[in-house]
Amino acid sequence: MFSKNLSPIILQSRSTFQGISQAVGARTATNLVQGEPRNPSVKTPIPGPRSKKLIEELNTLQQAGTVQLFADYDKSIGNYLVDVDDNVLLDCFTQISSVPLGYNHPALLDVFTDKHNLKSLVNRPALGVFPGEDWPKKLKNVLLSVSPGLPYITTMMCGSCSNENAYKNLFIAYRRKERGEKGPFTQQEMETCMINSAPGSPNLAILSFHGAFHGRTLGSLSTTHSKAIHKIDVPAFNWPIAHFPAYRYPLEENQRENEQEDKKCLAEVEDLIEKSKRNGVPVAGIVVEPIQSEGGDNEASPEFFRELQRIAKRHGAGLLIDEVQTGCGPTGKMWCHEHFNLDSPPDIVTFSKKMQLGGYYHTEAMKPQETYRVFNTWMGDPGKLLLLEQILNVIKSENLLQQVQKIGDRLKTGILQFEKEFPHLLNSTRGRGTFLAVNAATSPLRDDFLSRLKQKGIQGGGCGDHAIRLRPALIFQEHHADIFLDSFRQVLKETK
Amino acid sequence: MFSKNLSPIILQSRSTFQGISQAVGARTATNLVQGEPRNPSVKTPIPGPRSKKLIEELNTLQQAGTVQLFADYDKSIGNYLVDVDDNVLLDCFTQISSVPLGYNHPALLDVFTDKHNLKSLVNRPALGVFPGEDWPKKLKNVLLSVSPGLPYITTMMCGSCSNENAYKNLFIAYRRKERGEKGPFTQQEMETCMINSAPGSPNLAILSFHGAFHGRTLGSLSTTHSKAIHKIDVPAFNWPIAHFPAYRYPLEENQRENEQEDKKCLAEVEDLIEKSKRNGVPVAGIVVEPIQSEGGDNEASPEFFRELQRIAKRHGAGLLIDEVQTGCGPTGKMWCHEHFNLDSPPDIVTFSKKMQLGGYYHTEAMKPQETYRVFNTWMGDPGKLLLLEQILNVIKSENLLQQVQKIGDRLKTGILQFEKEFPHLLNSTRGRGTFLAVNAATSPLRDDFLSRLKQKGIQGGGCGDHAIRLRPALIFQEHHADIFLDSFRQVLKETK
Repeated sequence: MFSKNLSPIILQSRSTFQGISQAVGARTATNLVQGEPRNPSVKTPIPGPRSKKLIEELNTLQQAGTVQLFADYDKSIGNYLVDVDDNVLLDCFTQISSVPLGYNHPALLDVFTDKHNLKSLVNRPALGVFPGEDWPKKLKNVLLSVSPGLPYITTMMCGSCSNENAYKNLFIAYRRKERGEKGPFTQQEMETCMINSAPGSPNLAILSFHGAFHGRTLGSLSTTHSKAIHKIDVPAFNWPIAHFPAYRYPLEENQRENEQEDKKCLAEVEDLIEKSKRNGVPVAGIVVEPIQSEGGDNEASPEFFRELQRIAKRHGAGLLIDEVQTGCGPTGKMWCHEHFNLDSPPDIVTFSKKMQLGGYYHTEAMKPQETYRVFNTWMGDPGKLLLLEQILNVIKSENLLQQVQKIGDRLKTGILQFEKEFPHLLNSTRGRGTFLAVNAATSPLRDDFLSRLKQKGIQGGGCGDHAIRLRPALIFQEHHADIFLDSFRQVLKETK
Repeated sequence: MFSKNLSPIILQSRSTFQGISQAVGARTATNLVQGEPRNPSVKTPIPGPRSKKLIEELNTLQQAGTVQLFADYDKSIGNYLVDVDDNVLLDCFTQISSVPLGYNHPALLDVFTDKHNLKSLVNRPALGVFPGEDWPKKLKNVLLSVSPGLPYITTMMCGSCSNENAYKNLFIAYRRKERGEKGPFTQQEMETCMINSAPGSPNLAILSFHGAFHGRTLGSLSTTHSKAIHKIDVPAFNWPIAHFPAYRYPLEENQRENEQEDKKCLAEVEDLIEKSKRNGVPVAGIVVEPIQSEGGDNEASPEFFRELQRIAKRHGAGLLIDEVQTGCGPTGKMWCHEHFNLDSPPDIVTFSKKMQLGGYYHTEAMKPQETYRVFNTWMGDPGKLLLLEQILNVIKSENLLQQVQKIGDRLKTGILQFEKEFPHLLNSTRGRGTFLAVNAATSPLRDDFLSRLKQKGIQGGGCGDHAIRLRPALIFQEHHADIFLDSFRQVLKETK
């Protein structure tokens, strides 16, 4: 068993279970969530017969070709996703990285037994016009308590609309600077914007990176460049796109090349900004993921991000760091970009997924001075913020960020060892915390690994062309890591 | 009291309350929601001192200039919105038309006492990949049960992203027709779309109307033309925009002119489609509201919509009817366009607001054949669908659509009478069901009416430049209508 190769790990004692600190073997550890099964168990091919029947049924109502299985969310618990054919899967993908505390966490099941909370959920207000009494307090105590150094918050519904609206803040801030603080809108601007023409609808751009994913609505899709099938046939803004660093691994053996790669990409960014301005399309903002997630878990160095911020500042463009997938703890810090030691916080940080609702933090300069410029009916959802409140409480009380770092180290050490054992199958292990990825030698091999992992009871995910990505919940523990590593090792050993 | 001018109305007996059919006076009617106050009551200027303090607090965290008051959602009940200064307002605006059953409806408060429902809420899946067992059944029994004749459903989060994604379906369907059913993507398309260039990112347009509102994300904002402040400084797709009919009122006295207006606008639509095609930007779809809501409650005739659909068909463009604000009953039918007697259902109908979650119904032709083309992490929210399930149950069991027609007639009759009494103050009463509007003579007068109505305990809303819009909940009853009419009459009488 793989876990025998690792030293025994001491679990901290935790208030939610009775056990005291104890040395634990891989499969006998006390669980952070009571009632978790000890092991995955697979009874049918996946999707199983019941899932297949439901996929057929769903397909009569919508394009259901992306469905992998139907889940039983009454039975799913902690890190284990149970499907309708009673297969029990260790979930290392967590609903595309959107489940921070696993399934049916007692802290979350409790939220709406409180009558006030239930009424906040059911009486969903137009938050921009008639917010409930405790909304400012909740924004402050919940969202602001984990802000990456940014004082303002705009709440939204999902990642795409967070990015879309944040782009608007970037455009608005850029034009305000151009006008000077006191400049009113001209009559011409007011009139031309109504017919989508300049100067009211100005030729401004958001610079993005090849391989990026920022969403699928038309503005955010114009900055998404991960897969053709996401983009084909959809009109796009013709905005500049720079190359994101493509590192060689292992990093420590390729330091010089990778530094060169950073420099090349940064020079291209600066060049594109200048060119775009000369062509009459100034770059109002740069949008970047701290780790390009959908595009293949492509990482870049802290130096790259620090320099990128300096370039943005130099050219009067805002820097938006998209933490929709990386935010809320999986890298071992609340926000991945906190690993970068930037000169100052980014201008905007967007979030969604594990945060339950979309939104963004931003600077004073990014706050529109006029009303109704960034606005919609709901502006978020108080019910989701109540769930987030409990999630953040559990993250703090259970020291889950520290847990993520520890488990991440264990996983990364294990996968790096597989790289050495199976160099023809795996390469380029990378990532932070449990937000990890490794490349398979080929794309079909990657798909084959994921499918065989699933038959061993591991729900994994892919990204980019070659990568297997790990996206476990923040409550993933040593024994879960060992189950994953054991299964992955078997899959690799069984590969012809 | 105004109600004395109307004949007494017979309320149907209803299973949810004990009363049997009875003739009721305006203020003594049995309420559809138990515990409603009998009257509005206003104790402070609105916003009151507590609201003002909270607005200040919120303004340290975000642009809070749009907030009218802070509400107490524990105390709000039925048609009455209670604010934090204990002002009790009859809500004729319902959170920008998004609350179908008023506040704290018992049917909604019950939904999450069921353990299975609670788990569906808390374990929010990536619906496109790991839906819960009952998702297809819920889509069918809840959403499909009120479909306007369209067999497919895509669920989303909000109105903007419903329109954004629906536009993608229009583009995809248009290009599929161009390619022929069997055509694969060319290598060139696959490559160029990744850099936002044609032919992969094609020059295709969505035709929209002046005065329209379809959302505020970049794609939907390109089809929104209601107010400059929504659009200024934000880049837009330069798509064609046609004039929406601007009718003269009363309709029955201006039939010929209004028919001419329809014809002029329809000719412009056809002309723009042809011109756009000649300019290399074919129109893939037309997006239109059945009543332009944010833009001023501008209505158009059934004939206009029938002919618009024929034009769309003739030119191979899809017709998208945006029912985000009009859908779910306020016009007396589930969908406003059902008043139009179209030749066939529209290609796409989008919804949100009262429906609790965003989404759209569509035809077979609008369903992408390939996977992952219209997709995102959440693809809606099962928790919201559970609320909608109960809302639709109550609409059916309480015959609320019939109720809306009846109350709408009462309101419209009353407002038309005011038009006659105060022709220098009001004109152009219009709308369907309780989805009604009337123009004030000037824009400042409109704002003044709304503000004085509020001090009499009526929460109203404006739209466009001159309109007061009514957006009561579907549980608005005779006595509520009479309270509104009484107060409005007082406001008009007190106008110097």
